[in-house]
Amino acid sequence: MGNSKNGESSPLVGILMGSDSDLPVMGEAAKMLKKFGVPFELEISSAHRSPERTRQYATTAIERGLKAVIVGAGGAAHLAGVIAAETTLPVIAVPLSATSLGGLDALLSSVQMPKGIPVATMAIGAAGAVNAAIFACEIIAGSDANLAGKLLEYRKELARGVAEKSEKAKREFEG
Amino acid sequence: MGNSKNGESSPLVGILMGSDSDLPVMGEAAKMLKKFGVPFELEISSAHRSPERTRQYATTAIERGLKAVIVGAGGAAHLAGVIAAETTLPVIAVPLSATSLGGLDALLSSVQMPKGIPVATMAIGAAGAVNAAIFACEIIAGSDANLAGKLLEYRKELARGVAEKSEKAKREFEG
Amino acid sequence: MGNSKNGESSPLVGILMGSDSDLPVMGEAAKMLKKFGVPFELEISSAHRSPERTRQYATTAIERGLKAVIVGAGGAAHLAGVIAAETTLPVIAVPLSATSLGGLDALLSSVQMPKGIPVATMAIGAAGAVNAAIFACEIIAGSDANLAGKLLEYRKELARGVAEKSEKAKREFEG
Amino acid sequence: MGNSKNGESSPLVGILMGSDSDLPVMGEAAKMLKKFGVPFELEISSAHRSPERTRQYATTAIERGLKAVIVGAGGAAHLAGVIAAETTLPVIAVPLSATSLGGLDALLSSVQMPKGIPVATMAIGAAGAVNAAIFACEIIAGSDANLAGKLLEYRKELARGVAEKSEKAKREFEG
Amino acid sequence: MGNSKNGESSPLVGILMGSDSDLPVMGEAAKMLKKFGVPFELEISSAHRSPERTRQYATTAIERGLKAVIVGAGGAAHLAGVIAAETTLPVIAVPLSATSLGGLDALLSSVQMPKGIPVATMAIGAAGAVNAAIFACEIIAGSDANLAGKLLEYRKELARGVAEKSEKAKREFEG
Amino acid sequence: MGNSKNGESSPLVGILMGSDSDLPVMGEAAKMLKKFGVPFELEISSAHRSPERTRQYATTAIERGLKAVIVGAGGAAHLAGVIAAETTLPVIAVPLSATSLGGLDALLSSVQMPKGIPVATMAIGAAGAVNAAIFACEIIAGSDANLAGKLLEYRKELARGVAEKSEKAKREFEG
Amino acid sequence: MGNSKNGESSPLVGILMGSDSDLPVMGEAAKMLKKFGVPFELEISSAHRSPERTRQYATTAIERGLKAVIVGAGGAAHLAGVIAAETTLPVIAVPLSATSLGGLDALLSSVQMPKGIPVATMAIGAAGAVNAAIFACEIIAGSDANLAGKLLEYRKELARGVAEKSEKAKREFEG
Amino acid sequence: MGNSKNGESSPLVGILMGSDSDLPVMGEAAKMLKKFGVPFELEISSAHRSPERTRQYATTAIERGLKAVIVGAGGAAHLAGVIAAETTLPVIAVPLSATSLGGLDALLSSVQMPKGIPVATMAIGAAGAVNAAIFACEIIAGSDANLAGKLLEYRKELARGVAEKSEKAKREFEG
Repeated sequence: MGNSKNGESSPLVGILMGSDSDLPVMGEAAKMLKKFGVPFELEISSAHRSPERTRQYATTAIERGLKAVIVGAGGAAHLAGVIAAETTLPVIAVPLSATSLGGLDALLSSVQMPKGIPVATMAIGAAGAVNAAIFACEIIAGSDANLAGKLLEYRKELARGVAEKSEKAKREFEG
Repeated sequence: MGNSKNGESSPLVGILMGSDSDLPVMGEAAKMLKKFGVPFELEISSAHRSPERTRQYATTAIERGLKAVIVGAGGAAHLAGVIAAETTLPVIAVPLSATSLGGLDALLSSVQMPKGIPVATMAIGAAGAVNAAIFACEIIAGSDANLAGKLLEYRKELARGVAEKSEKAKREFEG
Repeated sequence: MGNSKNGESSPLVGILMGSDSDLPVMGEAAKMLKKFGVPFELEISSAHRSPERTRQYATTAIERGLKAVIVGAGGAAHLAGVIAAETTLPVIAVPLSATSLGGLDALLSSVQMPKGIPVATMAIGAAGAVNAAIFACEIIAGSDANLAGKLLEYRKELARGVAEKSEKAKREFEG
Repeated sequence: MGNSKNGESSPLVGILMGSDSDLPVMGEAAKMLKKFGVPFELEISSAHRSPERTRQYATTAIERGLKAVIVGAGGAAHLAGVIAAETTLPVIAVPLSATSLGGLDALLSSVQMPKGIPVATMAIGAAGAVNAAIFACEIIAGSDANLAGKLLEYRKELARGVAEKSEKAKREFEG
Repeated sequence: MGNSKNGESSPLVGILMGSDSDLPVMGEAAKMLKKFGVPFELEISSAHRSPERTRQYATTAIERGLKAVIVGAGGAAHLAGVIAAETTLPVIAVPLSATSLGGLDALLSSVQMPKGIPVATMAIGAAGAVNAAIFACEIIAGSDANLAGKLLEYRKELARGVAEKSEKAKREFEG
Repeated sequence: MGNSKNGESSPLVGILMGSDSDLPVMGEAAKMLKKFGVPFELEISSAHRSPERTRQYATTAIERGLKAVIVGAGGAAHLAGVIAAETTLPVIAVPLSATSLGGLDALLSSVQMPKGIPVATMAIGAAGAVNAAIFACEIIAGSDANLAGKLLEYRKELARGVAEKSEKAKREFEG
Repeated sequence: MGNSKNGESSPLVGILMGSDSDLPVMGEAAKMLKKFGVPFELEISSAHRSPERTRQYATTAIERGLKAVIVGAGGAAHLAGVIAAETTLPVIAVPLSATSLGGLDALLSSVQMPKGIPVATMAIGAAGAVNAAIFACEIIAGSDANLAGKLLEYRKELARGVAEKSEKAKREFEG
Repeated sequence: MGNSKNGESSPLVGILMGSDSDLPVMGEAAKMLKKFGVPFELEISSAHRSPERTRQYATTAIERGLKAVIVGAGGAAHLAGVIAAETTLPVIAVPLSATSLGGLDALLSSVQMPKGIPVATMAIGAAGAVNAAIFACEIIAGSDANLAGKLLEYRKELARGVAEKSEKAKREFEG
């Protein structure tokens, strides 16, 4: 890959969000991509407040070399759908809990897309942001055996973590 | 007003919907505008399947002489928000019950807009379509005394209708 | 316009709410109207606790020169519907999160109006209050070119704000 | 009691509904009152389409001799709350399933009343209409020993009905 | 009325709740009854943890002279229904927000009663507790002109309170 | 086991439901118990309409030899909780879709029991009725090796059914 | 019973949870089993992060002597269903409130099992954890008269606790 | 690609569903893959009724050459999560409306996955099945320029379809 903004190579994944208030949650996606060594770019653009910027982002995403776009938004979360309308790249939505409805609004706004324009929706909030990054890696791993190996190793790491926590909990409660 | 497509004058209200399956419901808005003699145009365009057509519609709406846009959509109903992002005309959303969730998805996708870009949301389905048309008339009536008078007359008509139905029901049940 | 209570001219927009506990949220509408230089009045009246006061408010709204009424209420939010029943002015509802149901009660109570009497519903809470004010401006801008210009300028301001926040976020996360 | 419209005496209970489409369900309340021999009146009036008629109904309810008012409404069901705002009679709401949301809108619009103005809410639909009538009888029975006796007899009738149905079901399934 | 536990006369209203954790909310009902001078009794009994105590309470309620029973419960709120099954007194439910579902569980458990056994349901939480007390007063006022007068006076007090708060808010925001 | 009403031995499982309208769904539980050869009894009793009958049922359930009670109810489904309050037998609830809310009311009324009195809740409707029967068998199988064997055989039967249906579907779609 | 990890005898109940963050809630189940003297084991295993560990747990549960398995999980709570798919032991689910949806996701993921594989679902959160333990005791008590006696005693203890709290509350509020 | 079951080459996409009752909906995914010429396989396997078959499917999916797995399930829809737990391939869930809750249960069971194991969720029902197929194509198109071209062409086809339907609707309503 070529040089990129985060110092290694051209970004393969875009992380886009509708507001800077989404950064603490969507930053979890960035951290996970760093963990897997997948170069990414991070932008803020609103479907509603900056539609031209959003369209530019979407229509140039393929030529910029992206393989997937992760989109975080809350409330009437239109951003992922608007991106998906302008690119045939896989678009992954992270619905955010940004209103008094706990993210149910963002979930339904993201997932209930009409026939023809898919948006792949993850869990509400930080779990969804982390998983969006992993899912983007799973897409890229289809043609990157090294990354595929990292994903398998991560699975083992998760399983080991569970076993260790279980031992600790057993000692505390069964002791 | 000048000549228009529906035979009288330039359209003042746009009725836009995401799919031709929305026509039976959104046609109720058209009928109500005809009743009030307000010229309108009717189009289908999808936020997701025809984004360029949708943007063209929105960005030329003011210069075409529209005073309000009524937008019907179901599921992840982004169409009203996408129109609102591209025009400062009043945008009125009619959430449609087009999925197994009874329109709750379309309602939340329409109404929970972020700060800065308002979408005025009506009831789910046909009641919302009728009321969107009346609301558009209320907007136009601010500078059209004739239409304002028609709205007042319509209110009286509604009240008379209630009284007549009540008399009929009393006879049946109390008789 | 003539002299008014807030020092410039007759109010064009009414801001009404059901309780003084709604002031912190509904005050956001007032601030936004000030920003756009649109004169307004602010009142508290309850559909249930002060029905006569509410009716007086609604039935005199047109003759007082209002062009739109913004109504905030929580729980079984009947206030906007009650106002709409007594005036043909555009009525804009702001459902408030005032109970343990997160505003879903107020949203449904506001938006699901029957055929004939529209209420234009905004998002739950502060986003809705801000947008109600902007939407009232969009209505008035139909016959006020100066205000229409301010609305266009505000859109540009929103877009610039997004771009600036994006630059800041990129530096932090991609750095 | 004096003479009344339904042939026996002055009505003690009012049955009010927002639309003639509510008659099939609200008629269940009328039937139950007839069963208990409680004179009633039945009217249609809308909180939104006929506010003056609704107010007249509410403000004269006590002087007309009513002891309770049963109110059926669907969607943004404001009618019970509006009646309760204008009378200190007990107001009993029957939320109706009149939209695609299955009556959840009417339930929340009826039950989530603010402090000061109670509305006693029954189940959605026909079960609620029947129970509203029984509940009105329970109120009146506080000063009508004859009616109190009928209510006790009705309870026994219900219990007997359960036992008979159980015998029938046992024969069929355990046979 | 005779002497009673709260120092004046026999209780006319019972306040029952399922747990002592409900006391802070249900105490609002007690305060409101004191305000109106209506003698009451207050008990804790669970439909599930103390069914015999609950049945005793319900089956003796009429002979103890009660005119209405107010029942507060959260979660799977069966208490009001269980009381209603054992008495023909008016039973008024206050659904409480006692779980992570914000009282929606208690609301549906209280309100969706089957045909034959009504439970009059109030708003979730403190507003419902206050209104349950007022509603009990409205029932009793049917044969107590003094109390009826107090209820009318209370309505005027509510309306005055609204007007005063409005004046204060106007000064602050319209300044 | 001794002789029983369904011709083989004393019932080990009680199937109870609140109304004869629940029979078509709750009959699925009866069929499944027959399949496993577990003797059962079937009764109708309402928590609200026949509380004494319900209490009799619950308080004698252990002495009658039951090992578990399956309870079906819709709406404000109190029946399982009321049974559980009067016996320490395992009580299994089947929430039924009997109102316009699709069984959400019955589900929450059944499952959200307070600390101390458990109700084991199954899926809404027929799937829940079938599974309640299987779950009762799983309880009894703890001390009945023959039944335990039948349960294992049933699992194999389920897996075989899936494989056969898959083959059929593959031929149709991949053909 | 034989020797066990918690110092007395072989575990009869398994407590399983998907994450160590579930420990504070699921620990309530452990405490309740200790109170009843029922030996238990406690483990952490995730349906998704450690599927092999989860399968091992389930497939060996019967031979390890367990009589029931209590499973706590939040979000898309698959753990109970996955355990139930691999054992014919009674599986008791405790849905946990671990996301912004208040446990509604975990409740529906646990309870809506398809025909054939039952999961007995308890209330969301700590009440459910406590009740899962009691329910497991109710299962075991079917063949353990000593435990059955303890369950009856616990019921009396609950009833006494209610009566004591009621006395205290009466003094405070009626005093 | 090599020879495959549907006559062209090795399947690249797996379509898996929990029951043959899901075939009418999930068949829409098959049709869409055929349209794009992407070879696929179709199987039925249940997370609960055939766990071993399900595990076999998941653990061999990569070696069989699949690039993505589409999983349809209703109710407590665990199938996609269980597949995702056993493979690092992209797993795409289609929640199905198979219960009285309209698919909300399946949606939440699919989408609310915990950190570490992503499931990409589509809309409930047929729209979701169609979009799952398109999304799988978007994944594969990352390394298949021919398929990428087909996706772009399909977008144009969608846009043309919208324009044609709009013309037809205009003639009918504006005529």
